[in-house]
Amino acid sequence: MENFTFFNPTRIEFGTGKEQLIGRHLAEHGVKKVLLCYGSERIKREGLFDLVSKSLSEKGISLVELGGIVSNPVISKVREGIALARTQQVDAILSVGGGSVLDSAKAIAAGVPYAGDVWDLFAGKARIASALPLFAILTLAATGSEMNPSSVVTNDETREKFFIASTALFPKVSIVNPALMQGVTRDYLAYSAADVIAHLIEAYFTATVHPRLQSRLVESLLNTIIETTEALLADPADYDARAQFAWAATLALNGLSYSGAAGFSYPNHAIEHSLSALFNVPHGAGLSVVVPAWMKWYQERNPAQFTRFARNVFGVDTGEQGIAALEAWFAKIGTPTRLGQLGIREADLPATVDNVLGNLRVFGIADSYPREAVVAILTNAL
Amino acid sequence: MENFTFFNPTRIEFGTGKEQLIGRHLAEHGVKKVLLCYGSERIKREGLFDLVSKSLSEKGISLVELGGIVSNPVISKVREGIALARTQQVDAILSVGGGSVLDSAKAIAAGVPYAGDVWDLFAGKARIASALPLFAILTLAATGSEMNPSSVVTNDETREKFFIASTALFPKVSIVNPALMQGVTRDYLAYSAADVIAHLIEAYFTATVHPRLQSRLVESLLNTIIETTEALLADPADYDARAQFAWAATLALNGLSYSGAAGFSYPNHAIEHSLSALFNVPHGAGLSVVVPAWMKWYQERNPAQFTRFARNVFGVDTGEQGIAALEAWFAKIGTPTRLGQLGIREADLPATVDNVLGNLRVFGIADSYPREAVVAILTNAL
Repeated sequence: MENFTFFNPTRIEFGTGKEQLIGRHLAEHGVKKVLLCYGSERIKREGLFDLVSKSLSEKGISLVELGGIVSNPVISKVREGIALARTQQVDAILSVGGGSVLDSAKAIAAGVPYAGDVWDLFAGKARIASALPLFAILTLAATGSEMNPSSVVTNDETREKFFIASTALFPKVSIVNPALMQGVTRDYLAYSAADVIAHLIEAYFTATVHPRLQSRLVESLLNTIIETTEALLADPADYDARAQFAWAATLALNGLSYSGAAGFSYPNHAIEHSLSALFNVPHGAGLSVVVPAWMKWYQERNPAQFTRFARNVFGVDTGEQGIAALEAWFAKIGTPTRLGQLGIREADLPATVDNVLGNLRVFGIADSYPREAVVAILTNAL
Repeated sequence: MENFTFFNPTRIEFGTGKEQLIGRHLAEHGVKKVLLCYGSERIKREGLFDLVSKSLSEKGISLVELGGIVSNPVISKVREGIALARTQQVDAILSVGGGSVLDSAKAIAAGVPYAGDVWDLFAGKARIASALPLFAILTLAATGSEMNPSSVVTNDETREKFFIASTALFPKVSIVNPALMQGVTRDYLAYSAADVIAHLIEAYFTATVHPRLQSRLVESLLNTIIETTEALLADPADYDARAQFAWAATLALNGLSYSGAAGFSYPNHAIEHSLSALFNVPHGAGLSVVVPAWMKWYQERNPAQFTRFARNVFGVDTGEQGIAALEAWFAKIGTPTRLGQLGIREADLPATVDNVLGNLRVFGIADSYPREAVVAILTNAL
């Protein structure tokens, strides 16, 4: 087991009705005026916006709206949010939505007190010294952003999808009410499952040190995601399944699953970020294509862990069977497993590989993934 | 899954050499003068005291010593610490030791700003409004106190063993260096294993709502404790086993294992607190006697979970076999399973039952455990 620091000060308020107390949480942090970030107008149609507005106004907190944040969120929208937050002199950011809204909110929170252009923070040209306090009401469980200090945003000019991380970006309070997620489509549920599974397997397979305790925790979360995704596809109103799915998604990327592991990396995310940056595919759909392709390429580098995965997650005997079982499961729940299903053709590979090589440098693993490796992995996904 | 709040702001610094940075952590929190709490003189003989002193003085932090804290820590010593902290005007408390030292440090931290007698806080006569900031260097992994807001102390006049809990009592920073635990005796390793297992099984068996996700996480931790205890008994120098044991012990009682569970209680702790309060037995040794006796009595109330435990922890088929396997495992690692091994005889039962009934009221479960139930459980342990 490697040395590590575990520090996660986010307060999770989990369960039904918790969003009704958002005003109280902001008031406890002294917030007077907040930038409310959201995506589509769905939160207005379904009443969540009114409920949040009412809770805020009861505590004398005024709000400024920033709607229209899209999946695979873009830095141009973040810049718009920073300008608005400055003009309106808000003292906190509130995200109401899924991971894309929350990651945009984090970038805005970091960008407001930074004098230069916010992309500098993503490009490694400047460090995050401080951020506005951040709060979240989650409406889609997938990214884990509600209990971690990271944000991923795409530069819509350069088509780079990069990330930032800073302890200043832990949400102060994240409200996770599974009932708010009941309207998630079958497609997005499947993409979300693929995203969570990808978060869990990156360190599980790539770490040079991965103690059995951590492997067991990861397998507990993997088995929960698989079981509850199937339950939700059978019955979208199954609150308990949705709740376990949501909490497993949070725990998958809050530091727990890789504490004490060492030498791990995020190759699947590095590769997928190029697919969503270049072709604007849903992140989870990209991951369900990349993960099996990467596993087939990587397996021989850590065969014992692939056998362990096969046995403890799918109840099959060999590493190959485990990969095949995961790929078949992705297909069964309705998330893509081939680049063609994303509309990406063989002719698109050269430009994709170039973008992936840039991401691999950002992720610090360019040496382990030379061009021919990336070509081999993407070819596995054709 | 029930609604819950998860909030745990303690920073864990885990691994070798982490204690050398204690001065820096205190300085970052603005500490100028600290009350250093410890147990025996062992930390002076083995050099840890000097190392801590040096780290503090390098940051200009002065220290006041409170040594001689014993296992099953007592309120009279806590009062001595409070008086010393006030006279010396320290601005923080630092625990260097195991759970007993840390629980005493927590009680001192809570008692210093409270105008009345500190036992009021344990007896429910007053609430904890604030506490001095608290830091810990852990030398024994068992109680989980390093990452939770609770403290258990015995009143040496009334022989009551009660607890306090407050978010003000989360340690700011806890240093968990498994190498500092290498000198733990075989007996105390076994007692510690029993303590952690008891923490894990209380909610696992008693909860009226215990989602499968949480059961899986508990089983992951149980299997880790069993596996690493055996590894450490075979080779006390096995750092990796000691590290996994320590992190599993922390995770067993930091909120993770019971988030989303409901209707659970701590009957084994309520019963054991009487054994250690009346007979001064090690807490873990008391628990390894109480737990199988309680399981035999409780099993018919939740048979499915006992079968699950039997299969997933010991690989046996029935609830009875699971209980027998745990009892045999306790015997194998050398922790008691019978009251007689603790020097407690049948003639001691009436007075013990009276004390237990008092604890059950404090734990809020007196209605579920009438006198005849306590007699039955303790009789199982004869």
